[in-house]
Amino acid sequence: MILNSFKKGVRLLSAGILLSSLSLYTSCKDAEAEENSVSTSKIKGAKDFAQYIDPMIGTAKMGHTYPGATVPFGSVQLSPDTDTIPYAVDGHYNPDVYKYCAGYQYDDKTIVGFSHTHFSGTGHSDLGDFLIMPTTGNLKLNPGTATNPESGYRSRFSHNKENAEAGYYSVMLDDYNIKAEMTATTRVGMHQYSFPENVEAHLIFDLMHGIYNYDDKNVWTFVRVENDTLVTGYRQTNGWARTRRVYFSMSFSEPIKEYGRNRYDKQPYNGFWGKFDQSKNFPEIAGEKIRMYFDFDLEPQEKLKVKMAISPVSSEGALNNMKEEVPHWNFAKIKNEAKAKWNRELNKVQLASEHKDELTNFYTAMYHAFLGPTEYMDTDGKYKGLDMNVHQTDGFTNYTSFSLWDTYRTLHPLFNILQPERNADMAESMMAHYDQSVHSMLPVWSHYANENWCMIGYHSASVLADAIIKGNADFDQEHALEAMVNTARTRYYDGLGYYMDMGYVPEDKNGASVSKTLEYAYDDWAIAQAAKKLGKGDIYQEFIKRSENYKNVYDAKTGFMRPKLSDGTFKKDFDELNTHGQGFIEGNSWNYSLYVPHAPAEMIEMMGGKDQFSQHLDSLFTMELPDKYFENTEDISREGIIGNYVHGNEPSHHVPYLYNWTNTPWKSQDKIRMILKTKYQTGSDGLSGNDDFGQMSAWYIFSSLGFYPVAPGSLDYALGSPAVKDATINLENGNSFRVLAKNQSDKNVYVEKVELNGKELSKPFISHDTLIKGGELIFHMTNKPNKELFIK
Amino acid sequence: MILNSFKKGVRLLSAGILLSSLSLYTSCKDAEAEENSVSTSKIKGAKDFAQYIDPMIGTAKMGHTYPGATVPFGSVQLSPDTDTIPYAVDGHYNPDVYKYCAGYQYDDKTIVGFSHTHFSGTGHSDLGDFLIMPTTGNLKLNPGTATNPESGYRSRFSHNKENAEAGYYSVMLDDYNIKAEMTATTRVGMHQYSFPENVEAHLIFDLMHGIYNYDDKNVWTFVRVENDTLVTGYRQTNGWARTRRVYFSMSFSEPIKEYGRNRYDKQPYNGFWGKFDQSKNFPEIAGEKIRMYFDFDLEPQEKLKVKMAISPVSSEGALNNMKEEVPHWNFAKIKNEAKAKWNRELNKVQLASEHKDELTNFYTAMYHAFLGPTEYMDTDGKYKGLDMNVHQTDGFTNYTSFSLWDTYRTLHPLFNILQPERNADMAESMMAHYDQSVHSMLPVWSHYANENWCMIGYHSASVLADAIIKGNADFDQEHALEAMVNTARTRYYDGLGYYMDMGYVPEDKNGASVSKTLEYAYDDWAIAQAAKKLGKGDIYQEFIKRSENYKNVYDAKTGFMRPKLSDGTFKKDFDELNTHGQGFIEGNSWNYSLYVPHAPAEMIEMMGGKDQFSQHLDSLFTMELPDKYFENTEDISREGIIGNYVHGNEPSHHVPYLYNWTNTPWKSQDKIRMILKTKYQTGSDGLSGNDDFGQMSAWYIFSSLGFYPVAPGSLDYALGSPAVKDATINLENGNSFRVLAKNQSDKNVYVEKVELNGKELSKPFISHDTLIKGGELIFHMTNKPNKELFIK
Repeated sequence: MILNSFKKGVRLLSAGILLSSLSLYTSCKDAEAEENSVSTSKIKGAKDFAQYIDPMIGTAKMGHTYPGATVPFGSVQLSPDTDTIPYAVDGHYNPDVYKYCAGYQYDDKTIVGFSHTHFSGTGHSDLGDFLIMPTTGNLKLNPGTATNPESGYRSRFSHNKENAEAGYYSVMLDDYNIKAEMTATTRVGMHQYSFPENVEAHLIFDLMHGIYNYDDKNVWTFVRVENDTLVTGYRQTNGWARTRRVYFSMSFSEPIKEYGRNRYDKQPYNGFWGKFDQSKNFPEIAGEKIRMYFDFDLEPQEKLKVKMAISPVSSEGALNNMKEEVPHWNFAKIKNEAKAKWNRELNKVQLASEHKDELTNFYTAMYHAFLGPTEYMDTDGKYKGLDMNVHQTDGFTNYTSFSLWDTYRTLHPLFNILQPERNADMAESMMAHYDQSVHSMLPVWSHYANENWCMIGYHSASVLADAIIKGNADFDQEHALEAMVNTARTRYYDGLGYYMDMGYVPEDKNGASVSKTLEYAYDDWAIAQAAKKLGKGDIYQEFIKRSENYKNVYDAKTGFMRPKLSDGTFKKDFDELNTHGQGFIEGNSWNYSLYVPHAPAEMIEMMGGKDQFSQHLDSLFTMELPDKYFENTEDISREGIIGNYVHGNEPSHHVPYLYNWTNTPWKSQDKIRMILKTKYQTGSDGLSGNDDFGQMSAWYIFSSLGFYPVAPGSLDYALGSPAVKDATINLENGNSFRVLAKNQSDKNVYVEKVELNGKELSKPFISHDTLIKGGELIFHMTNKPNKELFIK
Repeated sequence: MILNSFKKGVRLLSAGILLSSLSLYTSCKDAEAEENSVSTSKIKGAKDFAQYIDPMIGTAKMGHTYPGATVPFGSVQLSPDTDTIPYAVDGHYNPDVYKYCAGYQYDDKTIVGFSHTHFSGTGHSDLGDFLIMPTTGNLKLNPGTATNPESGYRSRFSHNKENAEAGYYSVMLDDYNIKAEMTATTRVGMHQYSFPENVEAHLIFDLMHGIYNYDDKNVWTFVRVENDTLVTGYRQTNGWARTRRVYFSMSFSEPIKEYGRNRYDKQPYNGFWGKFDQSKNFPEIAGEKIRMYFDFDLEPQEKLKVKMAISPVSSEGALNNMKEEVPHWNFAKIKNEAKAKWNRELNKVQLASEHKDELTNFYTAMYHAFLGPTEYMDTDGKYKGLDMNVHQTDGFTNYTSFSLWDTYRTLHPLFNILQPERNADMAESMMAHYDQSVHSMLPVWSHYANENWCMIGYHSASVLADAIIKGNADFDQEHALEAMVNTARTRYYDGLGYYMDMGYVPEDKNGASVSKTLEYAYDDWAIAQAAKKLGKGDIYQEFIKRSENYKNVYDAKTGFMRPKLSDGTFKKDFDELNTHGQGFIEGNSWNYSLYVPHAPAEMIEMMGGKDQFSQHLDSLFTMELPDKYFENTEDISREGIIGNYVHGNEPSHHVPYLYNWTNTPWKSQDKIRMILKTKYQTGSDGLSGNDDFGQMSAWYIFSSLGFYPVAPGSLDYALGSPAVKDATINLENGNSFRVLAKNQSDKNVYVEKVELNGKELSKPFISHDTLIKGGELIFHMTNKPNKELFIK
C-alpha cells in the first residue's frame, strides 16, 4: 500500500530503505488463530483459576489497583486512565492526585486513554507512560475534562460495556463507538480497536500524560516515525523517580495515512526561514511537551492493532523486545497466552472450593501479589542501572519497583514459598542496585533505575536475610551480607548516625524517630540472623546488639513507645493516639509500639507480661478512635480500621498474631477471621486500603491459609485461623503442602487443634523447613475458643 | 588520607569499596616528568611549526575562535569563557550572544571559567559544557557580572598574564591569585591550578553554564560523587542541537574535603520529613539547573589537577576514555604530547620562511583548519547515533560537527590533500548519519548526534562526491551515492519538491529561493560526477540535468540571478544589492549571481561573455556598498568586504578565481593577494569574519599556495597568486609536492609564468591527480601583469 501522504511529499521510510541498526520490522500479519486452549500449567490437576481473577477489585476508593492487562511480574501494565490530575494546584499539593495512583477510579465516567505502565496499589505514584486513545471525527489533541468530555479526546464509558480479566481488558468508548481491547506480554502491550465504518480514524499519542504529574514531570520526549507502521522514541520524566527514561517501539497493523504533533513548550530551532513545517508529517519530533496523532484509512470491519514495546535501555532494545515477544499480529494468541501465564502462577495454590467469592478473593489476591516487582530488562538481559549506565544481567532476571517498607513484611516471605526463583532474582536485583549505588546502599523504595527514598528503614536487609535463612539464596550470600551491613552503616541516612551512636533516633534531630528506631532494630536483627548463618560472629554481635534498640524508646511510665530527645528525655506533650508529630509515620504509638516482630516475648515482658499485654491488645481492637486521629493521614482511612487497629496500612500487620505469645492464642483466631472477612471483599471497593504492590494481598493469602510470617528472617510461621477449607500449595521443588480446615465455616473460626503430618502441634508455630518438605496441616475448627490450646 | 567529612558523616566511597561497573579509578600520581622533547613527526626535516600557532587570532570581533587547549580534531576544547550571555532578553533575541559563539571575547576583562567544548569560528553556536572555575575565600555559586565581578565567582584577568599555545593555555586569575593552566588529549581536558598558600580552595563546577544559552537550554543534569576523587554524570541540553547529551568523568588529584550543590529549579522528592540534606555532601545529584562546588585542603605549593573526560555514550565510557588517554597525573607530559600532535599535522606543509608573520598566519590557519570536525566516539569505537541508540564504528573514526555549508567549499578539498584518511572517515561518519537518519538524509549541519538544519543545500553530497572523484574513498561508494541521491530527492526538504518539479525554488513558496536553487544545482552536478565515475548512467542523467537549473533563476534583463515566483514571473521590486528578502541568504544578488562553480564558462557566456563578465567582476571589487546593505546581516561585516565582494562569508569564496575563465586571468592574481594580505592578519582581530570551522583558514592555505578548488567534485584547481615563497606539501602517500614562487615579494603579485614539473602551463589549472603524484610547481612572479598568460 502506498501512502497518500507519501505522494504528497511526506517521506516515510518504506520498503527497500532499511533502517540502520533498527533493521526494519516487518509487519507480518498472521492469520488470527482463535485458539482457546488454556494451556495452564504442568501442575497435576491444573485448573482455570484465572477465571476468578477480578482486576476491578480495589479500583474504587483507595485500593490503588488498575484494571488493565498485564502478565505476572510484567514490565507492561496496559490500563485505562480515567483522569489527569495535576500533582499541585496553584503551587499547593492537590490531595485528589492520591486517588489516581493507579490512573483509574471506578466511579469516574470517562476514560482519557490507555497508558502502558502502572504501579499496583502503591501509596505514592509515578509512571503512566505513552497514553494511546483512539478517536474519530474532529481531531482533538487535549484530554478535555471529566465534566466536559467533548472539550477533549477523552470518552465516556460505562462498566456494563467494560470487561477486565487476567491479561485482557476491553471497553466500549461511547463517544466514538469504538471497542477498545488490550492484552500484553512481559514487554509488549497489544491494542485492538474496532472503529465504526466510514469514519476518520485517529490515534492520539499523548506523551505529556503521566500519573502523579509532579510539576509537569516531563523532562524530554524524543519520537521518530521510522516508517509507515513503526514509531520509536523515549520519554524522560522527573517525578517520583528523579531521572526516569522509558524507551518504546510502537508498531501499527495498518499504515499511517498522516500524522502530526503539537509541541507545548518552546519551539525548536528550525534552520533558516522555517525550513519545514515540523508540526505535520515530519518524522523527527522532540521536546518537553508533545502530543501526537496518527490517522489511518481503515477498510470496513478492519481492526486497527497496535503493539507497544518498552525498554529501559533504548528504542533499539524495545524493537528487539517486540520482535522476540510478539512477532505477529494475532491478538487472540497473546490474550490466551497471557491467561495461561496467570494460570501457571495461580495453580501454585489450588483451592478446593465451590464458593465463588472465596475463589474470587483468593485468586485476585494471588493476582495482585504477582503483579510486582516487575521485570526490568530487555530480552537480551540489558538494563539501565542506578548509575544510568547500561548493564548486562549475569544469570538473573532484573526486577524493579521495590515497595519495600510494605512488601518485606509478607509479600517477599510469600515469594519464598510460591516464587523462590523470582525472589532470589529480586534479591540479586537489589544487590545490583547496591553495586551501582553511589551511596553503597540497598534499595529503600526503588523504581526504574532510581531510588525515590520513600518511607523508612532498610528493609532490603530483611528480604535478603529471609531468603538466606530460608535457603532460597542462589546468589553470593557474603556479598549480600556486605550489602546489608554497608547499608545499615550509612551514617547520613535518615537519622542512622544518631541511632548508631545513641541507640535511638532522637526526635529533635530526625522526625518519625520512633518508627525509624523500631524498624532499624528489626532490620538489624534480620542482618544478625544472616550473619549468624554465614558464620560472621563479629557482624552478628554488632547487629544483634543493635536489634535491642527498641528498648531505648519504650517509656515504662506510659507503657508506650515514645519519642526521645537527644538529651535523653522523652518528648513532652505526647499523645499516643495521634499520628502526627509524635515520632511515628503512618501510624500512632498504639499501633507502632507493638512493632518488635523479632522479639515479641521480650516486648510483652517489657510491657507488663502476657496477661496485661493480652488485654492491651483487646483494647486496641475495641477502643473508639475519633476521626481526627487519622483523617489527615495519607494511606489510613476509616475502611481499614478496627477499633484503633489499622489494617489498611502496614505497621500493624503482624499484630493480630501477637496473641500467640500470650496465654490467649485463641484471640488471634477470631481477629484474623474478622479481618479476612471485613477488609477483603469482592467488588471494586473490596480493598480497605492501598494494596501496596501486593502486601495487603499477601497478608490475605497467608492468613487464609492459616499461618503468617511475623518476623521475616525467622523460619517460624505463627498460626492463625484458616479461611480456606482445603488448599494445596504446589512448591517449585515439586513437593506439595496441603492445608485442611475440618469443620470449617463462617462461624467456626476457632481452632480446636492442629495436626502437622499427623502429629498434633503443641505450639502455634510451624517451620518453613517443614513446610518446604511438603506435608499436611490439618486445622480442626470449632465455634468456641479452645483456651487451652498451645499454652501448655 | 582520611576525609574530615567522612568523619562528619559524609559517605564518600573510599578505597576498598569498589564501584560496580565503574571499577574504581586509581588516582596514581606519576612523578611529573618535565619532558621537553617535542617529538614532531616522521616527516623528514620536521620542524617545530607549532611555535608559530597563535590561538588568539580571531578571538576579537567576529572571528569566533577560542584560545583554549585542544589537539587536532579533538573531542575536548578546553577554553576560557569570558561571559555568559543569554540567548534572549525579555523574550527577544539578544544580538550580543553572537559575539560569544566561541565563549571568549578578547576585549573582555573577566573570565567566568573554563568549559570543555567549543566550536571554532561557527556562525551559530552551542556547547560550553562543564564549566570549572577555581576560587578562594567566600564561596560564590553564581558567575556574577562583567561590570561587578565580585558579585560572583568570575575573576579579572589581563592578557599580559595569559598564554595561549598549541594544546596549552594559561592565565592568572587576578581576583584569586590563582594560576590556571590547561592542556588536553582527544577526549580528556587536564587542568592544573596553583593556588596561593593558606586559602580555602574551591572548585566551582557550573552545570548551568552554556554557550548560546537558548532559553535556558539545560534539560537535565545528573551527577554522582563516586568517591573522594571521582565525579561522573552527564548533562542534556536543548539548544541548537535539540537533544544533546554529553557524559563526563572527572577526577581530582587531591581528595575532596567537602562539596555541595545549589539546585535552581524545583526541589526533588526527598522521602518523608526531608530524609537528607541533599545540598551538601550528598553524592547523588540531579536536576535541570545545578551548580556545584568542591573544596580541597591543599599543602603549600601543591597544585590541584583535574582530569575531565567526556563521552557521547555514557559516564562509564568517559571513565574508560580517561583510563586510556591519561592514566597518570603528569600535566607536562600531556602538554608536550599535545604540541607534538600539532607538529605532526603542521609538518604536512613545510614553509621555508624566516618571516614570522607569514609563519604565524599560515600555521595558525593550519591550526584552525584542523580543529574540526571533531572526533565523536569513545576509545572503544562506541558513539551515540542520530537515532539516540548507541552504535559501534566498524573500521572508521566517527566525527561530528559538520558545518557543511561552509566547509564543503574549501576545507574538505584541503582535507583531500592533507587529511585524506580523516576525510574518508568523515565521509563514513556522514554516511552513518544517513543510515541513522529517519529522513534518510545526509547531514546538513550536524553536531553531537543531532541535525540542526542550519543554512541550506545538501553539501554532504559535494564532500562525498569530491572524495570519490579524487580517489580518496575507502568506503562503500555505491552506498555513498545512494545516500546522496536519497538526500537530493527529499521532497519535503526546504523547497526541494518545488525545485524537482519546476526547476527552481519559487520565492513565494520558500524564502532564499535563489540561493537554494543555485546551491542545489551545484550539489546535483557533484552527484552527477560521482554517478558518472561509478557508472550509474541514469543517475548521472537525472542530476546533470538538474545541475543546469541555475539557468532558471537568471534574469537576462538585469543580468542577475533573481527570485522567481511560482507563476514563472520574476519577483518585482528587486534590489540586487540588498541581502534581505531578495531570495538570498547571507549574500546579495551581486555576490550570489556568481555562484555556478560547476559551470563558470557557461555562466559567463550566459552573463554576456568573457569581457563583459570581467568588467562585471571589476565592479564587484571596486563599487561602493553603502552600510545599510549589510549592517544587519549576520556573519557579514565591514571588515570582510572589498567593494561589494564579501570575503568574510562564504558564497563568494570562489569568485576571485573566476577571472581565470575570462581573458583576464591576471586580475585574479592581485585580488587574491590583496585578500590574503588584508583579510588575514596576526593579532586577536586578525580575521575578517567567522572562521567557520576552518573554511576561511582553508581558503587562506590554498590561496597562499597558489591554487584553489573552485568546484569540489572536479579534479581541477584554478591558479591564483601564491603568497608563499617555498612550501612543501608532504602527502600521506609519501609523495611531496613543492610550490616555489620565484622572485616573490609583496609587490610581485603577478605571475609571469608557471612551470609544473619543468613544463610551462598554458592554462591556469592543475589537476589533483598530478598533485598527488608529487612534483614541483614553480611560479615566476613579477610586479606587472602578464596579460597574455593562459589566454592563448
